[in-house]
Amino acid sequence: MKRIVLSGCNGKMGRMIASCVKGRDDCTVVAGIDVSGEVLDAFPVFTSPAGCQVEADVIIDFSHPSALAPLLDYAAATRTPAVIATTGLSSDQVALIRETSARVPLFFTANMSLGVNLLVELAKKAAAVLGGQFDIEIIEKHHNQKIDAPSGTALMLADAISGVLPEEPQYVYDRHAVRRKRGKNEIGLHAVRGGTIVGEHEVIFAGRDEVLTLSHSAMSKEVFATGSINAALFLCGKENGLYSMGDLV
Amino acid sequence: MKRIVLSGCNGKMGRMIASCVKGRDDCTVVAGIDVSGEVLDAFPVFTSPAGCQVEADVIIDFSHPSALAPLLDYAAATRTPAVIATTGLSSDQVALIRETSARVPLFFTANMSLGVNLLVELAKKAAAVLGGQFDIEIIEKHHNQKIDAPSGTALMLADAISGVLPEEPQYVYDRHAVRRKRGKNEIGLHAVRGGTIVGEHEVIFAGRDEVLTLSHSAMSKEVFATGSINAALFLCGKENGLYSMGDLV
Amino acid sequence: MKRIVLSGCNGKMGRMIASCVKGRDDCTVVAGIDVSGEVLDAFPVFTSPAGCQVEADVIIDFSHPSALAPLLDYAAATRTPAVIATTGLSSDQVALIRETSARVPLFFTANMSLGVNLLVELAKKAAAVLGGQFDIEIIEKHHNQKIDAPSGTALMLADAISGVLPEEPQYVYDRHAVRRKRGKNEIGLHAVRGGTIVGEHEVIFAGRDEVLTLSHSAMSKEVFATGSINAALFLCGKENGLYSMGDLV
Amino acid sequence: MKRIVLSGCNGKMGRMIASCVKGRDDCTVVAGIDVSGEVLDAFPVFTSPAGCQVEADVIIDFSHPSALAPLLDYAAATRTPAVIATTGLSSDQVALIRETSARVPLFFTANMSLGVNLLVELAKKAAAVLGGQFDIEIIEKHHNQKIDAPSGTALMLADAISGVLPEEPQYVYDRHAVRRKRGKNEIGLHAVRGGTIVGEHEVIFAGRDEVLTLSHSAMSKEVFATGSINAALFLCGKENGLYSMGDLV
Repeated sequence: MKRIVLSGCNGKMGRMIASCVKGRDDCTVVAGIDVSGEVLDAFPVFTSPAGCQVEADVIIDFSHPSALAPLLDYAAATRTPAVIATTGLSSDQVALIRETSARVPLFFTANMSLGVNLLVELAKKAAAVLGGQFDIEIIEKHHNQKIDAPSGTALMLADAISGVLPEEPQYVYDRHAVRRKRGKNEIGLHAVRGGTIVGEHEVIFAGRDEVLTLSHSAMSKEVFATGSINAALFLCGKENGLYSMGDLV
Repeated sequence: MKRIVLSGCNGKMGRMIASCVKGRDDCTVVAGIDVSGEVLDAFPVFTSPAGCQVEADVIIDFSHPSALAPLLDYAAATRTPAVIATTGLSSDQVALIRETSARVPLFFTANMSLGVNLLVELAKKAAAVLGGQFDIEIIEKHHNQKIDAPSGTALMLADAISGVLPEEPQYVYDRHAVRRKRGKNEIGLHAVRGGTIVGEHEVIFAGRDEVLTLSHSAMSKEVFATGSINAALFLCGKENGLYSMGDLV
Repeated sequence: MKRIVLSGCNGKMGRMIASCVKGRDDCTVVAGIDVSGEVLDAFPVFTSPAGCQVEADVIIDFSHPSALAPLLDYAAATRTPAVIATTGLSSDQVALIRETSARVPLFFTANMSLGVNLLVELAKKAAAVLGGQFDIEIIEKHHNQKIDAPSGTALMLADAISGVLPEEPQYVYDRHAVRRKRGKNEIGLHAVRGGTIVGEHEVIFAGRDEVLTLSHSAMSKEVFATGSINAALFLCGKENGLYSMGDLV
Repeated sequence: MKRIVLSGCNGKMGRMIASCVKGRDDCTVVAGIDVSGEVLDAFPVFTSPAGCQVEADVIIDFSHPSALAPLLDYAAATRTPAVIATTGLSSDQVALIRETSARVPLFFTANMSLGVNLLVELAKKAAAVLGGQFDIEIIEKHHNQKIDAPSGTALMLADAISGVLPEEPQYVYDRHAVRRKRGKNEIGLHAVRGGTIVGEHEVIFAGRDEVLTLSHSAMSKEVFATGSINAALFLCGKENGLYSMGDLV
């Protein structure tokens, strides 16, 4: 029974993680950290990592970029492994995570879903085999309230694929403005927006008379909660270092 | 057994139509018209409509815009119904078709596939019910040699849908350049290009926790040949006037 | 502001409807009926229709087949239109609904989602055009806890399509046991089961080198709540009679 | 410029291979073998391997099971590597291939498409990660003239997946006959039949609120021709032994 400290426990994702953990018998939340300090569940809530004296096996952080530095200090000082699932970090903050991972096991990834991370691995494998011969296009679909396009996950896919292609590809977002054939090194990125779609990603490899398609659909944000819990259990007992979903997949 | 005059009989589509007709027992090609004048099949080939004295029930035209006017004259003079399947016509030429249809039955449509035209009708019906409540997006996929984007059929779909929506929609081709939520009146149009894909069109209606998708996939250009033959048989014995796939569907 | 009496208000669907209504400004729940009698929300709860003296514009019933008869009596006696969304009714009970609808407006359908009912209408239209020429297959996907297969909605689709086909089709559920070509009048029905999929239905029309696909995906049971609320608003002020989603679509 | 002997050169696949080779500059057909002996192309045709004295780098065999033994003898005697693409072989014949491969490089696989073989590899990788947690289902779609169901490729996929799962799965072809929840170790296999669909295979991994789908679509039989040519080029200069698409992927 692994003991979890949940940072950002009163946020939307924090509450979802607490709820998911309740349904499992391999882990439990022993303490929460949240600026509000409000107790909403059966575990104590502290307003900062410094105040949290509860012994734990692992930390899950789904809080805010501004809370990162003290949390990493706390993880390193107490030698408690931590899953950093907070998004929107600066490159300096990512560097700080990398640096801190020399002193404590840390887990960090752009998307906490097991399925999406597996999709990335499979797309890389397919691109390594088909790259140069097949044309690659990515379609992502999200709800109509999403502000950025394409999604961070679509770019994560495109970047991972680029890394294994023989030539550096060119990302193309719009074809209506020009009249010309598709360039051999293009990766088309298409951002569909509509309704309440949680998140769908599709990588298309189109060749001569055959098409291979790899796709992932998330039906709720719970997949990100589940992914972070599984990452936490994976991290317990690991050597110092920086881990990602690639290690879990 | 309906007798067909095939205009543009030595072109790619003309030869495919001749080949399809051979496999049917409800029609036959009695003469061809082609600038080359070359005889490739069991029927005579004339270099212009004027030279074709063979009696027929219907004309199928898959030739070139420059050949339109003499063909329409010939159809009207001989009172032979004609299916105009040539693409790339100017608006003046479309007006000439409309005008000539007062004197002879003519059939004209932007896409000769029965399935695509049915897709247009279904999309209009769906948009009439869901429009205003659901977000509408169109994805089309074609081979990597296609020069224009989005496809003429995607625009035909979008225009048909627009006609039944409560408000005039805005066509959106690229979302990566801006950071903002989807506008309520957008129709997103996405042009995927890859391999040898013949033609796929998908209309997505995304609402609150439900998505309705209507899609069509053409596996060969033969569907356009079959569509034009069926249009020709439909046209035999009709009153003067302008017909389209909407009448067949 | 339409006033709703919610029958089965403490069940899973009842609570979801109550929650959806809270987010709308065109209706409100003024009373609930539930065997438990427990008050969970801001409206009074009665243990039977007879006890409910609250004036209302419309009733939504998502309760249990055993509660149908008294509910219909109540609707007729108080002349309050009612949406019957309870599933698993016997044919006698459906007959009772039909009979009662002579005295009060009633709304009854096998699936409360607007999108699914529109899918049925579109599939009928497509089958009327393509039937006899195209092969029709239905794939449905649901979560791994579902007991029946194929889904009631898949059968509703197949039956609706059958009604417009030139010949009575034969439903086929399994092809692995026999070695033979597809019969011309088959409708294949495929029940995919996995994970937590809420409900997906796909109708495939496969012809010569072209395929038309109509599909619907529900991402949560909320679509059934929304559908029943919209049906209720539609029903207010209608003439006596039996209405279904077909009238709304 | 690799020199190919084409066994079964006058059959449907043989002629397609000859046509594909003409469009390439890395190989050429120097001789054909076909029971008919008819010369249809620019290369000589022999009625049996024994009669073929033309020097070559590799053999492609798309003929008939009954022609296998003499072909293998010929390959071994002349030390010419051979791609065996003939289908419908008995297990004794597969054993003979294995045995002969000790004396000459042989390539053998159930499906010659690069994309399908990559799909198999990706599905194995996904099953190794998700197996036990996610439910696996396979949908295959083929034309209405196909006699067997499910397709050999669907079974190849299921068998490959089975090999990496923690427990032996049970293949399920029909769910309509029973009322029960999905078993944890089922793999559902669904055979859709319609129109002229060349071949589509879809592997679905459905988990808690997320679905990963891997799919392949062949648009013409040319992909099998191309696959066998690429296998032939790969085989030139290899050590004795038995190779498959897994080595190419």
